[in-house]
Amino acid sequence: MATVPLISDDQASTEVLAVFDDIRAVRGTDEVNNFWRALANDPALLSATWSRLKEVMGPGALDPLVKEMLYIAVSVANGCEYCIHSHTAAAKTKGMSPAQHGELLSVIGMAMQTNGLVTAMQVPVDGVFEV
Amino acid sequence: MATVPLISDDQASTEVLAVFDDIRAVRGTDEVNNFWRALANDPALLSATWSRLKEVMGPGALDPLVKEMLYIAVSVANGCEYCIHSHTAAAKTKGMSPAQHGELLSVIGMAMQTNGLVTAMQVPVDGVFEV
Amino acid sequence: MATVPLISDDQASTEVLAVFDDIRAVRGTDEVNNFWRALANDPALLSATWSRLKEVMGPGALDPLVKEMLYIAVSVANGCEYCIHSHTAAAKTKGMSPAQHGELLSVIGMAMQTNGLVTAMQVPVDGVFEV
Amino acid sequence: MATVPLISDDQASTEVLAVFDDIRAVRGTDEVNNFWRALANDPALLSATWSRLKEVMGPGALDPLVKEMLYIAVSVANGCEYCIHSHTAAAKTKGMSPAQHGELLSVIGMAMQTNGLVTAMQVPVDGVFEV
Amino acid sequence: MATVPLISDDQASTEVLAVFDDIRAVRGTDEVNNFWRALANDPALLSATWSRLKEVMGPGALDPLVKEMLYIAVSVANGCEYCIHSHTAAAKTKGMSPAQHGELLSVIGMAMQTNGLVTAMQVPVDGVFEV
Amino acid sequence: MATVPLISDDQASTEVLAVFDDIRAVRGTDEVNNFWRALANDPALLSATWSRLKEVMGPGALDPLVKEMLYIAVSVANGCEYCIHSHTAAAKTKGMSPAQHGELLSVIGMAMQTNGLVTAMQVPVDGVFEV
Repeated sequence: MATVPLISDDQASTEVLAVFDDIRAVRGTDEVNNFWRALANDPALLSATWSRLKEVMGPGALDPLVKEMLYIAVSVANGCEYCIHSHTAAAKTKGMSPAQHGELLSVIGMAMQTNGLVTAMQVPVDGVFEV
Repeated sequence: MATVPLISDDQASTEVLAVFDDIRAVRGTDEVNNFWRALANDPALLSATWSRLKEVMGPGALDPLVKEMLYIAVSVANGCEYCIHSHTAAAKTKGMSPAQHGELLSVIGMAMQTNGLVTAMQVPVDGVFEV
Repeated sequence: MATVPLISDDQASTEVLAVFDDIRAVRGTDEVNNFWRALANDPALLSATWSRLKEVMGPGALDPLVKEMLYIAVSVANGCEYCIHSHTAAAKTKGMSPAQHGELLSVIGMAMQTNGLVTAMQVPVDGVFEV
Repeated sequence: MATVPLISDDQASTEVLAVFDDIRAVRGTDEVNNFWRALANDPALLSATWSRLKEVMGPGALDPLVKEMLYIAVSVANGCEYCIHSHTAAAKTKGMSPAQHGELLSVIGMAMQTNGLVTAMQVPVDGVFEV
Repeated sequence: MATVPLISDDQASTEVLAVFDDIRAVRGTDEVNNFWRALANDPALLSATWSRLKEVMGPGALDPLVKEMLYIAVSVANGCEYCIHSHTAAAKTKGMSPAQHGELLSVIGMAMQTNGLVTAMQVPVDGVFEV
Repeated sequence: MATVPLISDDQASTEVLAVFDDIRAVRGTDEVNNFWRALANDPALLSATWSRLKEVMGPGALDPLVKEMLYIAVSVANGCEYCIHSHTAAAKTKGMSPAQHGELLSVIGMAMQTNGLVTAMQVPVDGVFEV
């Protein structure tokens, strides 16, 4: 159970409904995920989060699929179960193949491992990295 | 200072030198970074880590630059200073532009933020993600 | 399922029952939460944890509600689901309003985001902070 | 060293200078910290982060000093050195006493400890928390 | 639900089945845990992970039970629920007594607490540690 | 620089000096590490932390060297630089050999890696673990 109520369309204020509608329009689906329904308890937080996320995750210098995979990488390191599920689903929708998923997992595992080794040994930063 | 000695070429065993030489050959540089010199205290760990990393980070279904950015994303969430420096340097060498770096940072920041919000609210996973 | 049995009142030793009774008295409830029943497998650990927690979370230079919110903030960053539920419930019992909860979430999200940005950019500490 | 250049006033675009000036005005100081100078490499990220932070950390249902302490709590759990320094300095500026600092530390330590204990024992969430 | 399918024996390729059989032989059980069935979607990742894990976790300079407890300690700090369950089960199989489990928990809790305190106070490393 | 002053013997109260003296006696050294000098700003926190740590890290069902290695494992996953240095030094003093250190590092790396893989794939806990 969530620590806040999930706001249904019926319970939503006009301000919240406007965000819900924009989510539906941008994503091309009727579904409004639980994350947004939870955030809707604080309309200012909902609005700020959605408008920034829409901007950050859209097309730009990086491919939207790459952005989803970066999101997964961060969420795994932070252990955010919901985020891993939602962004893995989004990555699949945006075309992530099983082979790409496998490589994503391999890189995450490798990074976790060497993060631990480097930190345990307290390796000093090489001068050549600092340019 | 590291918690283990950094093994110089002069101190390295034949087994370790062979790994150092492969690192130099694969990366096209004379430099062998401190991480490998620290791992060299345990030749089996050095060899296993390098051979796996070489395989994981090479070309495949994902672009090597994308892999470097995924590595950065994990390392940031884990707070691994050395790893952030080394893989940001590697990403720049592989062509990461300032615009791509900016978007990488924006995605990391966004993911960290929503990881925190989701976790704080303990949002239940939507049924639609589980396919 | 827990990795240790949850100790019921019937299974509890005299030493453990004394801690359970103190928990009931201090909190003004008959309920002894699962955390304490799990810790009760090691009476010394139970006793040390409860006596220190009682002291730390009581009134002092900081308001008990503020302490609950600080507890939530740490627990979110560590991803401790049980802790988030128990301390959010405690904060509500101590008077946390929906508006305060919303601001708590906003600060946590902001801190997570800038933690990630600062770490990714490896920003050097300003001299003015070090006083 | 940072992984991005720190943008001086001389190097800043008009858009970036406007944010720097607002930071100076809101904080009542000539100093613009390294964090903002690092973010300034991406003016959109700088602007979005500053405008949201200004809103979140200002007065509201929670006291600004409480917000600084919450920020410290999250930053400690995430191990963000820069953030700990900057927000501890800010908390002192906003009146955090040594006694309050000591209690903040005690709560952080207590939360970290019980986060670990709960997670290690995988304690199931009590029904009474879920209301 | 997992983000990848769990590969049954019937679905497994010859390469994957060979790893499953080695797992069964080394562990002396017919059971192949979900972790390996999930990894089996990427046979190279499955094979690399199993062969390295088998080597690392076997007898050596450290007792296999000590290695399981170290695994638990890392998994707790990272909040990996599955890993905590699987390695606590493995530690019990290898002879971890309730008293040893209690001390493991106490050390984890103590380390988490002082990690937080040290980080919050940004204590400089003593010269005597750096030898 | 620390966020609190480091208390010298000259600045210490009688209560703090008594703890410092006990640290010297138990550890058989004149050195009082910076961690204790930082905690000394809050005598109650200093005293509670030292008395509990002395109890937890002493001989018991687990060997003191094993406890130091567990401490390192947690501290690495939490990225606590000071703690890694201090407990690696303590482990060496208690007899950790280079071979043991190498295996400790290997287990930490392995655990970090599989923590990431398991979390990324959201592997469901096997029924056999739950006993």
